[in-house]
This record gives sequence, C-alpha cells and structure tokens, in this order.
Amino acid sequence: MKTQPVSSDFVSLDRLSVLEIEQLIERALELKHGQPSKTFANKTIANLFFENSTRTRCSFEMAEHRLGMHVLPFETTTSSVQKGETLLDTCKTLEALGVEALVIRHQETGYYHALMEQLTIPIINAGDGSGQHPSQSLLDLMTMYEVFGHIHGKTVVICGDLRHSRVARSNADVLQRLGATVIGSGPPEWFDETMGIAYVPIDEAIEQSDIIMLLRVQQERHNQAMELEETYHEQYGLTLDRMRRVRPEAIILHPAPVNRGIEIADELVEHTQSRIFEQMKNGVFARMAILERAFHPNSTEGAI
Amino acid sequence: MKTQPVSSDFVSLDRLSVLEIEQLIERALELKHGQPSKTFANKTIANLFFENSTRTRCSFEMAEHRLGMHVLPFETTTSSVQKGETLLDTCKTLEALGVEALVIRHQETGYYHALMEQLTIPIINAGDGSGQHPSQSLLDLMTMYEVFGHIHGKTVVICGDLRHSRVARSNADVLQRLGATVIGSGPPEWFDETMGIAYVPIDEAIEQSDIIMLLRVQQERHNQAMELEETYHEQYGLTLDRMRRVRPEAIILHPAPVNRGIEIADELVEHTQSRIFEQMKNGVFARMAILERAFHPNSTEGAI
Amino acid sequence: MKTQPVSSDFVSLDRLSVLEIEQLIERALELKHGQPSKTFANKTIANLFFENSTRTRCSFEMAEHRLGMHVLPFETTTSSVQKGETLLDTCKTLEALGVEALVIRHQETGYYHALMEQLTIPIINAGDGSGQHPSQSLLDLMTMYEVFGHIHGKTVVICGDLRHSRVARSNADVLQRLGATVIGSGPPEWFDETMGIAYVPIDEAIEQSDIIMLLRVQQERHNQAMELEETYHEQYGLTLDRMRRVRPEAIILHPAPVNRGIEIADELVEHTQSRIFEQMKNGVFARMAILERAFHPNSTEGAI
Repeated sequence: MKTQPVSSDFVSLDRLSVLEIEQLIERALELKHGQPSKTFANKTIANLFFENSTRTRCSFEMAEHRLGMHVLPFETTTSSVQKGETLLDTCKTLEALGVEALVIRHQETGYYHALMEQLTIPIINAGDGSGQHPSQSLLDLMTMYEVFGHIHGKTVVICGDLRHSRVARSNADVLQRLGATVIGSGPPEWFDETMGIAYVPIDEAIEQSDIIMLLRVQQERHNQAMELEETYHEQYGLTLDRMRRVRPEAIILHPAPVNRGIEIADELVEHTQSRIFEQMKNGVFARMAILERAFHPNSTEGAI
Repeated sequence: MKTQPVSSDFVSLDRLSVLEIEQLIERALELKHGQPSKTFANKTIANLFFENSTRTRCSFEMAEHRLGMHVLPFETTTSSVQKGETLLDTCKTLEALGVEALVIRHQETGYYHALMEQLTIPIINAGDGSGQHPSQSLLDLMTMYEVFGHIHGKTVVICGDLRHSRVARSNADVLQRLGATVIGSGPPEWFDETMGIAYVPIDEAIEQSDIIMLLRVQQERHNQAMELEETYHEQYGLTLDRMRRVRPEAIILHPAPVNRGIEIADELVEHTQSRIFEQMKNGVFARMAILERAFHPNSTEGAI
Repeated sequence: MKTQPVSSDFVSLDRLSVLEIEQLIERALELKHGQPSKTFANKTIANLFFENSTRTRCSFEMAEHRLGMHVLPFETTTSSVQKGETLLDTCKTLEALGVEALVIRHQETGYYHALMEQLTIPIINAGDGSGQHPSQSLLDLMTMYEVFGHIHGKTVVICGDLRHSRVARSNADVLQRLGATVIGSGPPEWFDETMGIAYVPIDEAIEQSDIIMLLRVQQERHNQAMELEETYHEQYGLTLDRMRRVRPEAIILHPAPVNRGIEIADELVEHTQSRIFEQMKNGVFARMAILERAFHPNSTEGAI
C-alpha cells in the first residue's frame, strides 16, 4: 500500500481535484509554449498496450523521449502473457527488472486497482476497457482551455456511442466539475441515461454548443452496424450542411482515428474550426505533464 | 503542395538527375570511408513497414542511429491501421505528434503520391508494391561504383523474375541513364518486354557481363513455382559450372534474402566475386546519405 | 573459426571453468552492489527471440541499456525469417549491417554451433530448445551465492519436469561441479534417469534441501496435463503445509513465469524465504556481467 499524500498514479480524472486537473492543463500548455521540462535521464519506463493503438502509444513514446526517459521495449504479443502470465505478475516482473513506471492499456475495466495495491511504481492508465482514458480526457480539456481560456459556462455536446465509449462518461463528469454544461447526442439507442446529461437531437445540439465532441463509431464493436453506418452520417454525423449551422467560434473535437464520411464529412476533418490534429499535438504535451507528475507527485514548481 | 526547388522526399530514382544520383553515391562512399556524418540529435523519425523485412528495416534503423536520430517505435501489426485507419491519416497523425520524417514500405504501388501532397515532412520510400525500391537501387549502384569507379560502358545482366521485381525496372532505367548496357535473363515467361532491354539466355549473358544482378525467386508470389524451383537452379541459376565462365573481374549482386541453391549455388554466396554481404554493409551508408539529403535537400556541402 | 584463447561467446556453462563461472558471479554481485560497469557507448547489439519471453528479453534489454549499448530493434515476426531466410543468413546480415553481438533464443537445440563457426561476433545464448539457458543458470547461482557465499556441500532439489526443462540438466551439472549435492523430485514420469542424480519424493526432499528449485509446469508442452494440473499442487507442489517443513534457512527459487497454485501456493510466491523476485533483479546484473565478458573476453580487471 502506498501512503504518499498525493498518489503518483494517474488512472482516472475522478481521483484528481479540480485544482490538480487545472494545474496539469496549465503545465501542458507551458510545455507546449516552450518551457523546459523536467529531465528524467535514464529513468526507465515501459508501455504495455494490450489493445491496438497508434496515437496514444506513439504519443506516450514521444512524451517519454522528450523527457529524456529510457523506454524498455515490451510487446504483449511476444511476451510471457502468451504463456498465461497474469498482468500483475508481468508488472511485478518489470518492477523487479528496474522499470520505474508503467503506462498500461488493458481491456479489463479497472485493471489498475490490484496493481496500485501491489506495486510501488506509478501506474499511468492509457485506457481500461469501457472505463477511463484519462490522458485523452486531459488533452481534450487542454485543447478547450487553449482556445477559450476556461470552460465555465460553455456548452459541450458529446455525440455518438456514449454507451460504449470510455471517454464519454468520464469526460461528462469532469466537464461538469469544471463548470461546463454537457449534453448528449447521436443514435438514441446508443445514449446512456445513467450519465446524468440531457439528450438533444443533433440538429439542435450543434446550434447550442461551443464544443462539439464527436465519438468514433467503433465498427469493431458493432457487427450489426453495417447498415447503420450508411445512414449514420446523414442522421447523426457532422455533415457539410450541419457545419453551416455550427457557431463560428465553436470547435470540433474527435479522439481519432476518424471514420471520414461517417462521424464527420471528409472535408471537415481539416476545417479551420476542427481541432482534431491539434488534439494530437497537444496529447504529447499533456502526457509530458502527466509523466512529470508521476515522478514528482508532490512538487508544484516547474522545471528543475 | 511543397514548393521547394529540390524535394526532400526520396521516393524514386526516376525523379533524381544523374548528377544528384552520383552525388548520393559519392556521399555514401565518403561516409563508408569514415567521413563524419551530419548529426541530427533528437530528430525523430518513424519506420512504417507494412511488409516483412529484415535487411531494409534494420539497415534504416542502423543508419538513423548513426546519424543520432531518435526512432519512434511503430509496429503496423499493433497500430490503429488494424482499426481501418488509412495510411494517410496514420502519417498525418505521426506528423502531428512531432515525427519529422517517415520511412515507409507499403504494398500499394505509388502509395506515396497522396502523402507527398498532404504532408510537409519528407517521405522516404523503402519499397512500394511492384513499383520502386530506390534505397536498394542506390546501394546496388554504390557497390558497382565502389568496384569500378563508374558504370559507363559496363554490361549488366538482371536475371530472374523481372516481371514482379520492384528493383528490376527501376534499376534497368537508372543503369541506362548512367551509361550501362542492360540485358535481361532468366525464365522467358518471367521476362518483361516492356522494359526495353534485350533478353539473353543465361549461358551467354554471364560471359558478356561485368555485373550479374540476380533477383530473388519470390516463392511467396509463385504458388505454382514449386516444381519450377527444382529446375530453376540448373536452368537459370548461377551454378558452380556457370561460375567458371564468369569474367574474372565481374561481380555478383543479389538483393537478398538469398535462396541458396536456387538463384545461386550455396558455395558461391561467399565467393570472392560476390558482393552480396558488401551490399548489406553499403546499404547502411547509402541510407545515411539518403537521410542526410532528406533533412538538407538543398545543401551540397559535406559534414557541418 | 575463431581462435581467441578465451571465447567471447556465451552459449553454455559447460564450456566455462569453475573459475570463470565464479568470476562471473562475483562480477554480477559487484555490479549489484554499485560498482561501475564498463561502458560500451554505441556498441550495437540485437536481441533475436524466436520464442516468447518477457523476463529474459526485458532483462537483457535492461542490461544492455545500463551498459550504454544501442539495441537494434529486431522482431522475428516481421522479419525476413517469414520469407524463409535461415537463421545463419539472418545473423550474417545483421553482422554485415554492423551489429556487434547477438543475443538469441531459438527453438532448435544447439542452434549456435553453426553460428559460432561462421560469425566473428559473439553469440549469447538466451535459450536453445531443450538445451541450455545459461544466463538463467548464472542468475540462479548468483542468487545462491548471494545468500550462502558458496554452495559447496549444500543440497539442492530440482523439482518438476526435469525431462523437458532446459535449465534442469545444465543446472544439475554446474551445481555438482561447484560442490553441491543435487537431487530430483516431482512426477516420477517426468524424472530423467540419464541426469545422474537421485530421485527423492517431494516430502523428503524439502526437508533435506538448502535450495529448492521449482520448475515451471509447461502447460504449452503437456496437452494431456490438464488433469495432472489439478493434482500437481497437492502431489508435487510447494503447498502451505510442505512449507512448514522447509528448513528455516533454505531458499526457494523458480525461473518464472510462476503458475500460482500449481508449482507453489499463491501465498508463498512472496514468502520471506522465496527469492523468486530477487532472481529477476539479479538477472539484470548477471547479464551485464555476461555482456561485459562478451566484449572483453580476456580481461580480468573491473571497470575501466
């Protein structure tokens, strides 16, 4: 059991105070604007991705590199996980080998509870099942703060498969804690009433919103969705037509990979109001801030 | 659209002038002879290999390391390509994450056209479908120039599956531009009349040639070829018997991996006239020259 | 053929004298206690793992990093091995590319004989079929020496699938050369009479032994073993009940990954007499000592 007053783990934004979240956002923006980062020469870290990923994994790799860390190569497909080793034993092994922090994506929701109890090194959650994806949430928030300075009083629509998205629920919670009004849209059968937000049809929602967060249609989860896909764009997607009714100062976010022509019209991915590629850029800085905190959980100062 | 007078992309030798090609060869030989390379401390590059490779991939990795670059790990098998992300969006993502150049092998011939239009970072083609393999062509040329000083007036036979090889056609073109006479040999049904070179039976060809370029029998492409393999060596391969009729100053090249006992007798792979392992050595220096140019397309000076 | 008086290869403890083995153990313990290592700035090494592994591979990676080496990424699953290239040609290729040492795990027992003849760079065996696993043996010995100072006169029981384990036979040999008494236990049908050690039933064996080496039940090798597994723990495993009869100064070793509840009761993996996670820690230092020797086979001094 770890007993630090401030945990060095980063597993869910629910566990951070509003102040801590805003400090992370501020630090990420400072790093983006060229402030020197702390350095971690030869601190060894490992990235354990049990689900496919380009963006999140490469983004963490880049953040680790910029912080001067050594990344121990680890591939789940060629590891002893194939011999039936448990996640806990794999992580304890890496700790014994001298790895000083773990970034983990795993299909099991809440996989990190047992690890936090049994390991002394920080766990950074890069996505757990249908649970959380807190580094994605942080980069989303960072992108909003970068544009608006704050989100108090802003209206955010989250549109898409709210029921299966691991970002939707935790984003809705944190956005409300930070003062935003959150609404949901997309296919009514994918809406999740337990989230405590109002459902608003897409055509109304886009006219009310300062921030339009599109979720990915996860084709790998919806076998029956082939026919839906054909109609999704017209019914619930950000079409060229709907774009004309979006507020001029509003911004469009998407966690990517984008299904061009489904969630959003192909031509709008690079629209001036789209922040989709800016989100990717910001993700590297958000993860640098997260990693700095993992190694210096109690520090408040900037670069040493 | 990029508008630099000299492109920093390296996708095909067809796009380079004879002068540019000879400058690259000269630079690669300088690097081999110990001239210091330019340094690219912490320039980040990614290698995207959508087809299996040992030599080309490891050779680029080694060249990148010698130039002081940071290589972002990227595995196609565990990336979001598995979720259906397009090559273009994957590359735009990596660019957004801060990757400063991409080395790509992809099964689609000419995959790089769209990337060159949409990305601002240099693309280095490590093989496109049945198209080009320009870094292999450059190391082949470098190996010839190293031995002969030039190739003007030399006769080069390319022997094997000319129709499916991605090196054959582009090599034939560039060799002719550099002044060589190029002939083709191997199974007549694998010869490609559209290449504009003469077909010469192998027993004549080896007596005429200064440079014998053997192509790999790509068993993965020829399902029906199992019976052919048994007879290939006797009919078209470089047997011990044929070796006795090769000119004493001639050299033997093969892009590898070699099928020992098919394209060439096992004992001849390490023959004094074989440059097969020297090609691999040279490949690292050829790729260092290519990478230097990618980052400094307009520079003509040597090491800074 | 290499002709150095002392080989720089490390393929089997059988080939090392007792003096050489004890020097390696001593060096590994020195490194663990903080003595500076030799440095190998930018020496390039490659790890070729043709069988799954977490511990051994990551342990070598960590050792290489701590020695300042550059590790060339190599994945067997995406290499030209998939095109049928032989191990020898793959290794000769890597040597030609400038790789200066190879760490190899391969399913073929004794794969290294041909490589040692044909390559000039050192080969470090990370496991060959049912043959040897000498870096694991060395870390086992290091862990024993760390606790007892020596193993002369100690009794060691090796318990489990002696017939298929690649550590059992070579460990039995080297333990006897270093002065220990070695006995075997576990399922009688898995005992191997040709090893020249006595079979002792587990309940007697644990009372006699200073060192209890548990072997992994390799479920991937025993299809018929599903029913055996259910009874293995009670019949041959280190149960809570048997633990009470283990000598208070005795230690428990296991090469891992552990099948918790089969070879050893779940609660005993982290028992104070268990050295299982300490073995993993020690492995990094054992491999640093092995790598130092590979590059400086004739040197006897410590850090330069």
